[in-house]
This record gives sequence, C-alpha cells and structure tokens, in this order.
Amino acid sequence: MENLVDSPKGKLIDDKFYFPARVYYEDTDAGGVVYYANYLKFAERARTEFIRMLGINQHEGLATEDMFGFMVRSLNIEYKAPAILDDLLAISCEVLNVSGARMEVKQEIFCKDKLLVTLTVQLAYVSLNRKRPVRIPDELVKKIENL
Amino acid sequence: MENLVDSPKGKLIDDKFYFPARVYYEDTDAGGVVYYANYLKFAERARTEFIRMLGINQHEGLATEDMFGFMVRSLNIEYKAPAILDDLLAISCEVLNVSGARMEVKQEIFCKDKLLVTLTVQLAYVSLNRKRPVRIPDELVKKIENL
Amino acid sequence: MENLVDSPKGKLIDDKFYFPARVYYEDTDAGGVVYYANYLKFAERARTEFIRMLGINQHEGLATEDMFGFMVRSLNIEYKAPAILDDLLAISCEVLNVSGARMEVKQEIFCKDKLLVTLTVQLAYVSLNRKRPVRIPDELVKKIENL
Amino acid sequence: MENLVDSPKGKLIDDKFYFPARVYYEDTDAGGVVYYANYLKFAERARTEFIRMLGINQHEGLATEDMFGFMVRSLNIEYKAPAILDDLLAISCEVLNVSGARMEVKQEIFCKDKLLVTLTVQLAYVSLNRKRPVRIPDELVKKIENL
Repeated sequence: MENLVDSPKGKLIDDKFYFPARVYYEDTDAGGVVYYANYLKFAERARTEFIRMLGINQHEGLATEDMFGFMVRSLNIEYKAPAILDDLLAISCEVLNVSGARMEVKQEIFCKDKLLVTLTVQLAYVSLNRKRPVRIPDELVKKIENL
Repeated sequence: MENLVDSPKGKLIDDKFYFPARVYYEDTDAGGVVYYANYLKFAERARTEFIRMLGINQHEGLATEDMFGFMVRSLNIEYKAPAILDDLLAISCEVLNVSGARMEVKQEIFCKDKLLVTLTVQLAYVSLNRKRPVRIPDELVKKIENL
Repeated sequence: MENLVDSPKGKLIDDKFYFPARVYYEDTDAGGVVYYANYLKFAERARTEFIRMLGINQHEGLATEDMFGFMVRSLNIEYKAPAILDDLLAISCEVLNVSGARMEVKQEIFCKDKLLVTLTVQLAYVSLNRKRPVRIPDELVKKIENL
Repeated sequence: MENLVDSPKGKLIDDKFYFPARVYYEDTDAGGVVYYANYLKFAERARTEFIRMLGINQHEGLATEDMFGFMVRSLNIEYKAPAILDDLLAISCEVLNVSGARMEVKQEIFCKDKLLVTLTVQLAYVSLNRKRPVRIPDELVKKIENL
C-alpha cells in the first residue's frame, strides 16, 4: 500500500510554511462552525509537518528512553471569523524565537484569502520521562535559523 | 430513565463556581497526558454548567430563530502541569467583566490542590443566524452581578 | 480542592449499571446532533466507571511495567435516534460474557425514556508492553459474576 | 491563499478509493495508540472525499432548506492492530450496495501493507430538517454504479 497514498504535505512560500486541512464533520459543532478547541488540532498538525519538513520525526523522539518532545507551555488565540464544513484551510507556522529549551511560534489559519484565526504558541522541548526541559537539538535550531 | 442518572453538577464555593471532570482515555494523547486542546473542552463544560446554574439553557438560545449563543473571541491559556488518565479535575469559572455583548471569564483547572491550567476567555454573545453580536440578556447580567 | 468537587458517578439499578453524560458543544457536529464517533466516548466513560465501581482503577494497571488494560477488539453500534446539545444521557454497561482474556459488554444510551444507541463491544485484556492478551484478574472476574 | 495549499486527495486504484491520513497527537491516547473512536473519524473523512470525487459536495446538501446528508445507521468495526503516532494511513471506501435511501460501504484502514481496521457502515440519506430518509439522488447512484 506504500505507494497508494501520498502524505498531505505543507510547503514553504516566501519563507513561510503553510499546511492544508479540510474541515470535516468531526471538526464542527452544533453552532454550524468549527469547534473552538479544534483549531488547536489544525495548528498542531501544521507544527508537526513543519518540523517533519526540517527532517525531524516526532515519533522518533518520543520512542527514545527519555521521550523527547515539544510541549505547549502557553498560547494566545484570536478567533476572527469561523470556518465551516468543507472549508479548505491553510495553516501557517513561523518561528519567532528559538533558544535553549524554548521556541515561540506564530500561526495563522486562512480560508482562501480570509484570515480566520491567529495563534502565538510558546513551546518547551522536554523529556517526558525526566519531566524537565532539555536543550532543543542544535541540528533543529540550525535548520530553523537557516529558513 | 429520567431518575436513573443525576447530572454532573458544579457548585459555588466562596462565590467561585467549580465543575468536576474526570480524565478518560479520550482526553489523553500518546505523551501520556491530556492533549493540549482538550483542556478547552473541560473549560467549556464548566462555563456551560455555570450558565445553567444561573438558569440559562444554552440549547434554548440556539433553538430560537436568531440562534443566540456565546462565542469565544479570544483566549489565553497557560499550561503549568499536565493532567493524566483518571485524574479528577475541578474547573473554576469566574466572570471578570460583563457588559454589552461581551463577557470576560477567568478559569482555573485543578487536580486536588494543584493548579494545572489557567485560562482567560473573551466571549461575545451573538446571533449565529444574523452573524453579529447582540446584548447579553439583562436577566443573565443581573444574575452574574448578584453572585 | 479535594472536597470541592464530586466525581460524576454511575449507579446500579436492577443489576444494570448506568452512567450519566451531558451533551456539550464538543460532542455535536454541524448536523446539529452528536457526532457518530462520540457515542463511543460516552460508552468508554461508562465502561471505565463500571470497572471503577468494581474497585479496579485503570490508571493503576497502565502504570505497571506490563501496562495492563482493556482494548476494544471489535464492536457493533446501532444509531436509532440522535442526541442533541444539552441532552442528559444515561449509558448502561452490562457484561454478557467474561472468560480468559475476553469480555463482551452490551451498552445502551438513553435520553430520558428513549433508547438512542445500542452497542455490543468485544474487549481483550492485554499487556500493552508485551503486546499480547493476558488473563483478566480473577478478582475482577469474581466481582463481575457476583453482580 | 487559494493556491498556497492543495487539498489532501484520495485516488482510485483498481476501482477502489484510497484516502490518506497522518496520525497526529490528537488521534492517540495514553495507551500510545490511536483512540478507538478516532478510526471512525478517518473513515468518515474517506467517505466524504470519495463522495467529493464523484462530484457531490456535502456542504451544499446541508445548506439546502431540507438539509440533506448521509447519516450512519449502524456499523461494525474490527480492530486488528493499532496505529501509532506518525503512521501514514490509507483508508479505503467501497460501496457494497446502494438503493433507495440506503448505502452500504466497506472500509479498510492500512498502514503500509498491514491491514489495521475493517468497517462495514450502513448509511441513510436523510433530510435533517424533515427528520426522515429521502432517495439518494439518481446522479450519485449512477456515478457509484459506473465506478
């Protein structure tokens, strides 16, 4: 089956990464729009694919004994306009800062030309087993700085 | 069956509303903790039950022709410590401001004595059909001010 | 905070266990009803609380080195009528068979007197680390047979 | 932004439709695998894209006064092996029967060459407003029969 499907991929446009997501029933609520928590899922998919594009596989980090991974420390989200069923969204991912164990990311969610949602996300690179922050690997920091 | 089950209810303690939520598998992720978007579900359950305690039924508002309801305009969330499977959480709901079509709510999520998550949520009362903000009913504003 | 909130609990009525669940926005979709996958969440909450009532804590099993827990092997679900926002549901949990590593459970989801959904679920008790079925603890089997 | 992102699309291979889905944190649970209800989300995405490929847009049906759409009446699901974080899944969609208001669909979820999950889903075409089944449009039936 390996060749049957292609992974949904994002792409870099003017140094900014965009990832697509279609809105399905699972994402919506009885108000007829995307449920407010579900934009965080779209944002996390985009961050994951951004990091994958840089050559880092999150599952590998989690599979080590230390269980390395990014955790969200805090975020700000502004809902400007709602997405609805069947919308094709583009979710951006732009690193504002990266140093030590911390990374700050700005994300925007568009439908066609319309900006629907903006987020600023503070992430920490942590060992889930040792329950503490660890330095983000130099390899990843360099790749981000070279974008 | 009407008498078979009691609704999970929150309660007022020192003028602050607390609502319980148990962490189930559905709420967790492969990192072994509650998925970051799912705290927004717990927070929305607590806001809903807070408003129900004040005598307002969200479903009735949505069932009117204008489809009245609260929408989240923006929020801030800080993740201080993770919740895990089987934790019994207490989610608070405290109105900081209410005027016109807007309401600002502060929420905290505790497990026993430990503060895990804090949110500040900006809500707007809207007509989903007319797609615009409307005044929060006086009855609701008075009940909030009388707490 | 330990005393601030009570856990939502189910109860035994005529030897059948019922667990309550309120329908929130998170559970609904743009069709105005509960999303079809989300009834499986309600069902799993009821199974978890049924097992907790018998004195077994799922988190403890998962926290052992072998990571013991129940996994769903297969299920049948029939959607007779939809649940909507704000409905207070009662979810039953009745063991049809238990032997070796296997347990068969019948579940019904009611809103007031109306039967909305029925499920039959085949579960296996497994070690997640050793990736194979293991005997359900005798203590649990006896408690189920004594109901 | 319209050209920034491409929709994730499925494709027909030997008359069977396959749709891709990546496993993200949102899909997994504390057992380290995809949560059992979430395979139903993958399956529904594949059914939606299958119908879109045939030229039918679900959002348009829902936007009519009668609110036409497919509802799941019942399903059978067998979990053979778990999917984990970062797996790239292929979800098939094959119509077994279609007549009147009813359609029966078989779906399989693969990771590479491995069959993880099989489902059989009974769907009814309904008017959500009139709360009753309606004939599946001839246009859609013909397209399915011509596959």
